[in-house]
Amino acid sequence: MPTYELLLDKINLLLDQEKFRKKPLNLYEPIDYTLSLGGKRLRPVLVLMAADLLGTDPEKAMYPALGIEIFHNFTLVHDDIMDNAPIRRGKPSVYKKWNPNIAILSGDTMFALAFEYVAKVEKDLLPDILDLFTQTAREVCEGQQYDMDFEDREHVGLEEYLEMIRLKTAVLLACSLKTGAIISRTGQENIDKLYACGMNMGMAFQLMDDLLDTYSDPEKFGKKSGGDIIEGKKTYLYLKALELADEKLKIVLRDKYSQKGDPGNKVMEIKKIFSHLNIENLTRKKVHEYSDKAVELIRLMDAPIDKKKILVTVIEELTRRDY
Amino acid sequence: MPTYELLLDKINLLLDQEKFRKKPLNLYEPIDYTLSLGGKRLRPVLVLMAADLLGTDPEKAMYPALGIEIFHNFTLVHDDIMDNAPIRRGKPSVYKKWNPNIAILSGDTMFALAFEYVAKVEKDLLPDILDLFTQTAREVCEGQQYDMDFEDREHVGLEEYLEMIRLKTAVLLACSLKTGAIISRTGQENIDKLYACGMNMGMAFQLMDDLLDTYSDPEKFGKKSGGDIIEGKKTYLYLKALELADEKLKIVLRDKYSQKGDPGNKVMEIKKIFSHLNIENLTRKKVHEYSDKAVELIRLMDAPIDKKKILVTVIEELTRRDY
Repeated sequence: MPTYELLLDKINLLLDQEKFRKKPLNLYEPIDYTLSLGGKRLRPVLVLMAADLLGTDPEKAMYPALGIEIFHNFTLVHDDIMDNAPIRRGKPSVYKKWNPNIAILSGDTMFALAFEYVAKVEKDLLPDILDLFTQTAREVCEGQQYDMDFEDREHVGLEEYLEMIRLKTAVLLACSLKTGAIISRTGQENIDKLYACGMNMGMAFQLMDDLLDTYSDPEKFGKKSGGDIIEGKKTYLYLKALELADEKLKIVLRDKYSQKGDPGNKVMEIKKIFSHLNIENLTRKKVHEYSDKAVELIRLMDAPIDKKKILVTVIEELTRRDY
Repeated sequence: MPTYELLLDKINLLLDQEKFRKKPLNLYEPIDYTLSLGGKRLRPVLVLMAADLLGTDPEKAMYPALGIEIFHNFTLVHDDIMDNAPIRRGKPSVYKKWNPNIAILSGDTMFALAFEYVAKVEKDLLPDILDLFTQTAREVCEGQQYDMDFEDREHVGLEEYLEMIRLKTAVLLACSLKTGAIISRTGQENIDKLYACGMNMGMAFQLMDDLLDTYSDPEKFGKKSGGDIIEGKKTYLYLKALELADEKLKIVLRDKYSQKGDPGNKVMEIKKIFSHLNIENLTRKKVHEYSDKAVELIRLMDAPIDKKKILVTVIEELTRRDY
């Protein structure tokens, strides 16, 4: 019964075996670098877990799993340029270590590589696998565009925000589970359940991220909390607060949130408003709504209980993280 | 018997029918804009011509043809950022009209779209079509990286330059003809011949471009000649001249080519050296070597002579352009 760590090891081993150090070096070194930065490899592990859950040897899903991980890393390389983010997993991001042009082109190459790996499935499965992957890739781009659009917009609705994180984050987790399911040649019902499960997991995961950014213990998470507030990022927390605040408080919140004064003071004042509106609890409730739905979808599946438990544990660890 | 114009109309009609104006608009408007800028649509026309040559209704190859055109346009959108090129087909390039972030992300989306269209083939053909396309996409990225690398390098060999243009330009023409051939379900021999034909056509086409940049009649081509010389670009002409020049002339040529003085004077002086070394004729000879090989490969094929003639005419028009 493969646990997360075992599957993670498999992925990292395959990554080590595949040589991404081809010529021209200026193109492939950044790819090698990006893929060596580590991370929890959530998406490929989900591909393998879905296969395993449905009684298929995860080995059969290794290449598509790796393809999805390469795709995810491609999005990070390009996002870091667009978001002006000089650090990725504690190291300089590609555009910073090399330059933006190399980051654009290495990213493009990773995108092509992702397709090469995702396509390594039995021939008759290729149309479905590819349909899913191309649709997902485009949705992730759409999500990133909404995210950038929202920065420049004054008003963003809560529903719009949820749709944005669905596209930017959740669809790729859904795609990962569904890819494992398709490779397992299971029925449409299981495929749909796993896709929906991944989607709910992804929503919970991203909202948890919003929550952690503001409320995590800096000693536990290794980074200061409050970054989103300091940057004035339109998160679930902020948009929920705007929804609940009365007209007077809304004006105060908007005003304070857009200020660029003393960061420590700004975080404190915003958190005071959030606290007044019970935002932390309401967001946690929303996280649990999504994660409960994800767990319920797994429970409903006809699969061995011990294997279902592994996936449920992943969902719980991702979305009920102590903070 | 479909001529270039007829096939071009088909492509443009399909482009009009497909709506690329989805939401978010900031993502899809640049795609729509790019694909509406026109151009000769050489690559998709080649896909259709290959199918027609082998007795298959070009209609069957429309979507993959469009996919390859979308891919080509994606590379232009990203290249324009990297090359700092504000104008594309007489209009502002995407990064200039919008901004670099939107150009990166619209480009990524076009890449995903390209896969969607290329994949619209009969299911059993998909593995071969996709193999070819992913490999080609990666090679085109490699070619662009070499092109950027060469800018910063002092010494570039003639063979290296030819390999760069093979990757950056020729493989996509080869891929276009081969895609049409695969869709036609022809034998491996025809597939290989058309691939080789496209490669030679592409080499001739790119060298012709180098030639035109320096020797074209500005009144005929609507742009001033000498741009490559003014920018000090390492073209076939320059690298061939370096190969042929004696030590003394080599130093003079290197020195003058890297100067940023009066442009008109620079062009005149470099052309004088080129003329002394017979560069124009030698390059034209090289173009003809490639285009003759491309034509010969078509001649050797077992296909109706009138259809072969159409493709031969395209090769001749592309590579023996009056200037």
